[in-house]
Amino acid sequence: MKDKTFLMIPGPTPMPESALMEMAKHPMAHRSKEFSNILKEVFENLKYVFQTKNDVFLFTASGTGAMCAALENLINEGDKVLCLSIGNFGARWEKIAKSRGAEVIEIEAKAGDIIKPEILEEELNKNKDIKIVTLTHSETSTGAANDIKTLCSIIKNHGALSIVDGITSLCAMEFKTDEWNIDVAVSGSQKGFMIAPGLSFLTASEKAFKMHENCKFPSFYFNWSEHKKSLSKDTTPFTPAVNLICSLHTSLKMIREEGIENINKRHKKLTLALRSAIREIGLKLLVEDDKNASHSITSILPPENITVPDIRKTLKDDYDIIVANGQGNLENKIFRIGTLGFVSERDLIMAVGSLEASLIKLGYKFNVGSGVKKLIEELNK
Amino acid sequence: MKDKTFLMIPGPTPMPESALMEMAKHPMAHRSKEFSNILKEVFENLKYVFQTKNDVFLFTASGTGAMCAALENLINEGDKVLCLSIGNFGARWEKIAKSRGAEVIEIEAKAGDIIKPEILEEELNKNKDIKIVTLTHSETSTGAANDIKTLCSIIKNHGALSIVDGITSLCAMEFKTDEWNIDVAVSGSQKGFMIAPGLSFLTASEKAFKMHENCKFPSFYFNWSEHKKSLSKDTTPFTPAVNLICSLHTSLKMIREEGIENINKRHKKLTLALRSAIREIGLKLLVEDDKNASHSITSILPPENITVPDIRKTLKDDYDIIVANGQGNLENKIFRIGTLGFVSERDLIMAVGSLEASLIKLGYKFNVGSGVKKLIEELNK
Repeated sequence: MKDKTFLMIPGPTPMPESALMEMAKHPMAHRSKEFSNILKEVFENLKYVFQTKNDVFLFTASGTGAMCAALENLINEGDKVLCLSIGNFGARWEKIAKSRGAEVIEIEAKAGDIIKPEILEEELNKNKDIKIVTLTHSETSTGAANDIKTLCSIIKNHGALSIVDGITSLCAMEFKTDEWNIDVAVSGSQKGFMIAPGLSFLTASEKAFKMHENCKFPSFYFNWSEHKKSLSKDTTPFTPAVNLICSLHTSLKMIREEGIENINKRHKKLTLALRSAIREIGLKLLVEDDKNASHSITSILPPENITVPDIRKTLKDDYDIIVANGQGNLENKIFRIGTLGFVSERDLIMAVGSLEASLIKLGYKFNVGSGVKKLIEELNK
Repeated sequence: MKDKTFLMIPGPTPMPESALMEMAKHPMAHRSKEFSNILKEVFENLKYVFQTKNDVFLFTASGTGAMCAALENLINEGDKVLCLSIGNFGARWEKIAKSRGAEVIEIEAKAGDIIKPEILEEELNKNKDIKIVTLTHSETSTGAANDIKTLCSIIKNHGALSIVDGITSLCAMEFKTDEWNIDVAVSGSQKGFMIAPGLSFLTASEKAFKMHENCKFPSFYFNWSEHKKSLSKDTTPFTPAVNLICSLHTSLKMIREEGIENINKRHKKLTLALRSAIREIGLKLLVEDDKNASHSITSILPPENITVPDIRKTLKDDYDIIVANGQGNLENKIFRIGTLGFVSERDLIMAVGSLEASLIKLGYKFNVGSGVKKLIEELNK
């Protein structure tokens, strides 16, 4: 049906009506007092979501822009950077670091696995001159999630800076920037923040700012010092995407009302219930252990003799639900269901029910209704 | 009155209702066929507006992002760059070039003046090793506009690359990328394109692409080669601001319908009529000669004994019209009225009438009604 499409991908996510309506207003003057008042509240509420006492900068850019903003304010040619990769987005850190002339060491986990603390420790001991370590919290391409708290404490003890991609984890999972010793954290608007793509966020510790001061050619557009200066005056260095910011202003108020701990719990509950339902209908999960699962995205293997494109097509054509394919090597090997952002129990019941309806149409033999039953039982626990 | 604010600043500009409505739809999946179809048309129509046969890349970023995208794909440390500055935004090129280690030569014109061709010629003859020349078409901070056609032909003869800021000139003024030998041109969404801020555009000539190939550390986020590769598949390298792109899709269709030559003429007519009306009521223009005037923004000096803040405050409080202050050294010395984008004769009659009403309230002695009369006469010519 026209206009019925419902996204269950790891961003963009569905949006609350009130945040959508903000988008349709005539743009505000970006240097007006009225807009500065909005920005002031946005900056304050971003600190709440990132759980930090430091500033959170706001960029008019995709999440990848914020990833560039992280490394391009720190790296000088020849710097040694350790990139811990558990999928496509982990590998992106490596590409950005190399684009600035860094000497990159990469540790890559198998698809669906996470980084083991002892391997990080070993690598840091072998290379005492590692300056920066990049990590992914929730890996969007696989649905695995690293134990950031443990990994960042190891990095802190070694003395390097930790840079964490929290693009699909902020809001969906517990994320404590200051308490967990994360030096630089980034995220994006079309994820747990429940609005459209086009904005991204970054926070940096004092220690990161000290390293930034020695960066010879820091990014101009994403320059931390310029953003800090503007932020202190409730403004941005360059014309920002004002409509997106007004929309974010609304969604951040919703986030504060629900409370970040409750939002984390909601995502965890939805994901674990989805995982139980998937197992119940006899499908396999790419990330086997619940402990290693991201709470924003779940990667599912299709049953034998049924293809990922067929499952995605049936869900789309007959039920107007979009789920994601795998990326890179995982294309057509897995499909991914997002539970990120403005997603409720009702949405998940619909998704699991529609998945069951699609699978039966495609000839998969199973106890129809068992997935929804299991889901409801888990949700009602 | 609440919700009555009308922007007459050099961007953001008022928006057509149909483009606003696109903003309020749930975000589309950025890797879907449906979205690719939209992007394909957007890319095609951007080429029409830029008057080029080359690709026009689309960035999720402010106009300044596209300026960075221009220089950060070309400059190596130590390269000689000539920056021709006629105001604040001309000076921004210089800052970006320096942030990449370029050796910058600056020529600065007095506020309101433009770059004289003979001065450019002289400088290029003195410095045969200049690799890149940056220029501004319409200088937003003063309302002056360079003769890009003449300047770029001189640059071409010398052999350097020309990089033109067309942020407030595209649509408002004739701009022929290919015919005028412009190597790199940039613009932004919240200007002549009539939509909200958050997108920017760049096109690069074959010659520019050749220089790009020798850039040692090209920008990652704004990388031309990556954007070219994605564009050929009707997509973007990173998640773009999909709602803004759907909005742009609508406004570009309006631009094609009206026709770029007609849009150029409309802006010229509005600006010249405004300038006549301003002179008629006895105020001075910062850019004295009509030949040097931008057709997107007009800088006006306040009458003696009346301040710029008082004029802006009266226009805002009593008539809900926002006009811009001067920037930097020109703050409180001029105010600036935008005629850029979705602005009609009716809007300008309202603005000049409201300006007259404000001036009489502030004690300025003049023949009330004479500005509107002159404006109408010029518009009806």
